[in-house]
Order: sequence, then C-alpha cells, then structure tokens
Amino acid sequence: MFQVPRGTRDFIPGEMQKRRYLEQSMAATFTSFGYGEIRTPTFENLELFAAKSGESIINELYAFTDKGGRKLALRPELTAPVIRCYVERLQMEPKPLKLFYFGNCYRYDRPQKGRYREFQQAGCEIIGADTSEATAELLALAFTLLKNTGLKNIQLQIGNLTLISAILKKLHLLEDDQKRLLPFIDKAQFDDAKSILRDCNVKENDAERFISILQTSDTNEIRRFIADDTQAVKELDAMQTILSLLSNAFHISEYEIKLSIVRGLDYYKGLVFEIDAPILGAEKQLCGGGSYELVSIFGGSQVPTSGFAIGFDRTILALEEEGFTFPPLKLDVFIIPVNQDMVTTAIQIAQNLRSHGLSVDFEQLRRGIGRSLKYADAKHVERVIIVGPKELEKNTVTIRNMKTGNQETVGIAEIYAKLTTPDM
Amino acid sequence: MFQVPRGTRDFIPGEMQKRRYLEQSMAATFTSFGYGEIRTPTFENLELFAAKSGESIINELYAFTDKGGRKLALRPELTAPVIRCYVERLQMEPKPLKLFYFGNCYRYDRPQKGRYREFQQAGCEIIGADTSEATAELLALAFTLLKNTGLKNIQLQIGNLTLISAILKKLHLLEDDQKRLLPFIDKAQFDDAKSILRDCNVKENDAERFISILQTSDTNEIRRFIADDTQAVKELDAMQTILSLLSNAFHISEYEIKLSIVRGLDYYKGLVFEIDAPILGAEKQLCGGGSYELVSIFGGSQVPTSGFAIGFDRTILALEEEGFTFPPLKLDVFIIPVNQDMVTTAIQIAQNLRSHGLSVDFEQLRRGIGRSLKYADAKHVERVIIVGPKELEKNTVTIRNMKTGNQETVGIAEIYAKLTTPDM
Repeated sequence: MFQVPRGTRDFIPGEMQKRRYLEQSMAATFTSFGYGEIRTPTFENLELFAAKSGESIINELYAFTDKGGRKLALRPELTAPVIRCYVERLQMEPKPLKLFYFGNCYRYDRPQKGRYREFQQAGCEIIGADTSEATAELLALAFTLLKNTGLKNIQLQIGNLTLISAILKKLHLLEDDQKRLLPFIDKAQFDDAKSILRDCNVKENDAERFISILQTSDTNEIRRFIADDTQAVKELDAMQTILSLLSNAFHISEYEIKLSIVRGLDYYKGLVFEIDAPILGAEKQLCGGGSYELVSIFGGSQVPTSGFAIGFDRTILALEEEGFTFPPLKLDVFIIPVNQDMVTTAIQIAQNLRSHGLSVDFEQLRRGIGRSLKYADAKHVERVIIVGPKELEKNTVTIRNMKTGNQETVGIAEIYAKLTTPDM
Repeated sequence: MFQVPRGTRDFIPGEMQKRRYLEQSMAATFTSFGYGEIRTPTFENLELFAAKSGESIINELYAFTDKGGRKLALRPELTAPVIRCYVERLQMEPKPLKLFYFGNCYRYDRPQKGRYREFQQAGCEIIGADTSEATAELLALAFTLLKNTGLKNIQLQIGNLTLISAILKKLHLLEDDQKRLLPFIDKAQFDDAKSILRDCNVKENDAERFISILQTSDTNEIRRFIADDTQAVKELDAMQTILSLLSNAFHISEYEIKLSIVRGLDYYKGLVFEIDAPILGAEKQLCGGGSYELVSIFGGSQVPTSGFAIGFDRTILALEEEGFTFPPLKLDVFIIPVNQDMVTTAIQIAQNLRSHGLSVDFEQLRRGIGRSLKYADAKHVERVIIVGPKELEKNTVTIRNMKTGNQETVGIAEIYAKLTTPDM
C-alpha cells in the first residue's frame, strides 16, 4: 500500500476547513491593510537561498537538478522568492509596495512533533517604507492578523538588533565569541550565556548587568546603559516613537520589549519581533519578523524592506488549545427521493437550492429512507427533504429537521423560503 | 540577477486577483454540490505515479531522492494522490465520498505557449457511486463550475470507452494496431486514422462507417451499429439515462456525444467527457474527466470512482478572451496626514474603517499632498481622506472623490457612514 511521504500530511475535509478558515481570515485582514497577494513558484534556483542564508542552508533543502542541469530547491521560506520577484519585475512600482502571500515551504530535517517537512506559512513584505508609522503598522498588522483569527491570548515581543549590537560592543568580545553567545541569548538560556561570558573573561559585574539589560522591558534602564552611543540612542528614540504609535494610534498595548530576540538570521537589521501563544508552552512562537536587507544582495537598488511570517500549524494548534470553535463542515440539505421516479424532482429541488447558495446533496445510491437518513446523520445534515409519490402528486415534499425530529409538508415552490425560517 | 525558474511564473497582485476569484467561485460551486475540500502533499513516492500511469511517466516528472534514499516526485496530477489518501485513511467513511481540491502540478517538459512546468488544477473525485444520477451530477457539476466562473460559451462532449471498444471490436484489429490508431482518433485526425485502417487491411466501406460512427452524435445510428453486442447496448441505455437526467433534471442541454474521446489514459473506464472553450482555438480543452479504476491498483477494496480536472490557466485565458470583467484589485480609501502631528488621527481613522471591512492605506512616506494624491491615483483609489490641522481642530476631515474630484468636509465620527453613501 502506498503511504503519504514521511514528514508530510494529507488534510481531509474536516482539517482543510480549519486551514481555509485561517486563510480567509488572514487574507481579509491583509487586504484591509492595503496589501495585495503575490504567489511565487514552489521551487527556485538553489543559489537564491544560498545567497540569502549562506551555503549551510543547502543541507536543509529539498534540492534537485533539472534536465537542463539547473540546481533547484523547494523553497524553505517565502521572503527570498518574493524579493527575487520584486527585483525581477516590481522595482518600478510606486512605493511603498505591500505584498502578502500564503505558501507551502519545505524543510529537509528529521520530522518531530509539530514540525513537518512540508508546512504552510502566511506572511508579508513591505518594500520602500521604514518610517516609524510604517513599522508600527507592520507590528499592528501581525498582531491584528492573529487576533482576527480568534486567538485570545498572544504576546508581541519587540527586539532590536542595532541596540543589541551596541550593548554587545561594551563587552569587547571577539567576533567568534559573539557568534557563540547569540544563540543562547535568542533561546533565553541566560545561565549558559553567562558561562560563555565567564570563559571570555568578562567581569562578573558586567556580565550580570548585560544579562539584566537583555531581560528588561524598561526603556529608561536601556537608555542609561547605551547613553554614550549616539547611534543607539537614536535607534531607541525611533523605537519609542514606534511603540507610542502602537499604543496610541493602533490601540495595541499587549507588547513588551525583549532585547534578547536575535532571530538567528544574519540578514535582519534594526527592529525584530515575535508573537507567541503562551498556551503552546515551549513551541509557542507563531510569528517572527522585522526589518532586513535582501534587495541589494539580489542585485536590486537599495530600498528598505521588512516583513513577517506566520506558521499555520501552530496557529491552528493554539486556536484548538484555546477551545476556538472553527466554522463547521456543513451540508445544509440532503434530499431523499423515495423511488427512482422521484429522482428528477429531487435533482430539480437540489439545483434550485444550490443556486441560492445552499450546500445540497441527494441520495445517489438508491438506499431506502432509513439508510439514507443514517447517511444524512453521519454527514451532520440539519434538514432532510423527502420526495415521495403521494406528496409529489400535490406538488409538495416533506421537510424533516434532523435535530428536533419535526416534519412538515411544504409546497415545492416554498421550500427555500421555508428552509430560511428559523423554526425549520 | 536571480530569475524565476524556467517554465514557472510569479503571480503579482493583479494576476493573483484573477486566480483567487476563480478559486473562490469554484470552491463555492463544489461546496454547493456537497463536496468537501482535501489537500495532499506537493510530492509523493515516485512509484505511486508509475503504478497509475506506467513507467514512461517517470520521464515527465520532477523526481528526486531524499536523504533516506526514498524516490519522490512532484505530483503531475491530483487524482493519484487523492485516491492514495482515500485508500490510506478514508475507506471507512460513509459513501458516496465527494472530494474536491485545488493544487499545483508539475510537468517536466519543454515549456511552450500556455504550457508551464508548474500549473494549477482544480478537480474532484466521487468515490462509491456510479448510478446514472451520480454520473449525471458529475457532468452537471463540471459544466456548472465553469459556467459559474462567468464563461459564456462552453461545450460539453461526452464519450464512452466501453462503446468505443465495442465498435473497435468489429474491425478485428490486432492490439498493437489499435494502440497505434487511438491517439489519432482522440485528436480527431480521421484521415490519418483511415490510412492506418487501410494499412491493416480493413475494407474501405467498414473504415468509412467506423469513422462516421465516431463522429455522429445520433444515438440511433450508434445503436444500430452495436445492436448485436448486448453489453454495449446496455452501456448505451445507461448513457441515455444519464443524458436525459442532464437535460430534464439538471436543465443542461449544451452537450453532445463524441465517441472519439479516448483521453489517452489507460485507467479510464466507461463514460468520459471533456469541456471545451471554442474561443481558445486549438488549445481549447478546459476540463477532462470520467470514470476510472485506481483504488484496487493502490491496494484498496473495489469501489466505483469518477472525477474530473480543470486547468486554471486556460480557464483564465478563456474568460479574458470572452472579455470577462474580473473583480478589480481595490484599495477603498487612502488617508493623507498633512503633517506628522496628524499621523495618529490618520491611523485611528484607518483602523476604524478597516474594522468595518474596508481596504485602507495611509501615506507612510511623509510625501506632500500632491505626491500622495498621485500615489493614490496610481493605486486606483476612489476616495482619499485628507487629515489637516484646521479641519482637525473642528474634529473634521476632507473626503475627496478621486473620480469626480468632489471634496467635502465631514465629521470624524461620520466618515464611515459618509463613505457608504452613493454620492461620496
């Protein structure tokens, strides 16, 4: 027997319904913020991802060679393809350019709980705007997008790579030591970070103060620490403007400053952020983003870019954990022709109700009423229409409410009106 | 500079809008017919496609080997994955099972006009029902799906592989000759078909009659030709029942019988059909489908299956050729803060209108009014809101209709109401 490939999944209708709901909710929010949808190919030239993330990424890719000898790879993420498309086709468009997308991504690592080799992301990029109002809007969009899906408890955490660099500079670390340190900071493993600092002969006092700055959300404390670095002070001012817009203009106050966010990606610059769903425990990050520089690496003219990506799987998990009620898979009406002579009428009724936008099916296996009703029940149908010879003689049918068990005889011309009354 | 991989495409917002429209229209029709959506992985085990279509298909696939040594392939079509999923997970579901899907497929051939290496299909399968009413509904669904997208002129053509086999049997051809003949019949290249028949020593008269039967849509003529073959007569009877349901119950009359449809696929059985958009000329086929046998090949218990697939690219081309007006990409409102002190109010107005479902953007590059209006114009915005200091003192803003040039001063609390009146 054939099986679904390792690390991938089929989504059957009950599962697809949740993904569709999420996609539609997110598309509506992106559109309301003036974003337009973009879609790039499932695979790209392998070098595109190496140019963005370094050669080491290649080990994590689904890579293959095509007949023309081209090295291709299934995309591991969507920012590089979107920026490639921007450089190739969209540089002359009026700025800012606001693009959103949904797409499957592929990662060639060992499958584990909640991590798949094929997974869906939603995301966006804003190209050509880095004012504080543009950045505040990007943060607000990420937050609103997740809130609008129905999530109750999410946390927006905002870091800044310019500030963390200024703070690190004070420790006078070698570049290699800094590289060794950052992953522990990003994972908030501060004890491990401290022992690296000890190895590097950083004074205990300085190390303590450094770690405490990374954990504070008090901007005054940060300001005192970086007071002698004018560039860092300017960056902190800009960040405070962004945060005050977030509070006062976008009315979003569920955020905190978290300087330990590093995001592990070399191409991020300045502001970075993450959104967590605490209900998910260790694997709680739903969204990550920030400002980055990629356009010039891909051969385009320098322009500010920022964006974020949201994972579908964790967002659905978080909604499920919070007890969110997804819109149900529904079949509005099931029609049962009592015998073969009734089939034409049954179909005509079905077609009429479908043209009104209802989801309608009819008995197609010629089962008796009992077994047809059982099928309707298995499909969670609320209303069943029975087309029988006696009723049909009088141009009527029987409508049965499967929840209440109520039955009523209704004229064929009145079926739709009857179905839309609350009592039936 | 990096480029989109050969044979693939980026879809920028104006193009994605058309694809989204089509997807939403089709999803609504599928749902109204009681179908549920399914999604399978982008790649499958290579042997799945070889088991369905023979080893020769491997040359047309994007195939690759994963780290575990598994041979995988990007899917060239969606029926095999859906039936694989059915056999793996859905065999115990109540029947019939009605599944629809959208998905990208991949074909490793030379790119040509209108043929791409990555292309999107819509389609469906009905599993567990082969009554005439079920088959008639499948034909009606394919036709309605395309009609509901807005297409005006489409043709449904219905063939039957059981009948064509019965007709071929009368020519007493060797199996190899028959295999040589069928592709010419499928392409309606009847002169070439005749010369093959001549090669095979079929009498001129018999060849003429054979070719004429393949071209007729007169069921009486077909019936006379196969009158001595009871199985074929039974199949013709069933087909006539289906066609009369299509006319009388589904009220679809734009169809014709076309026995020359072979569909080139070994796994089809019995009824097959195609839907064309004649406006597209030679490359006019939008949809193909029929009954097939795949479940038992994949190790499942024998069950009737049929379905169809629709190509997105040709459907969009046909709509464009017919002059169909796709829903436009729209930005409902653009807000211009006259200076930086107005930004918070501009954002508050934007957020309020967005919460009402409008698509709203605001000036984020601090350009002057003239250049902001130019940007709004480039984005085809209909209404611009100007937030200026004098108006704001009185809690008002200026709304400008970009089409008519009308301007009006409106209280901030009344903006949404004003925007929804037809004159503004």
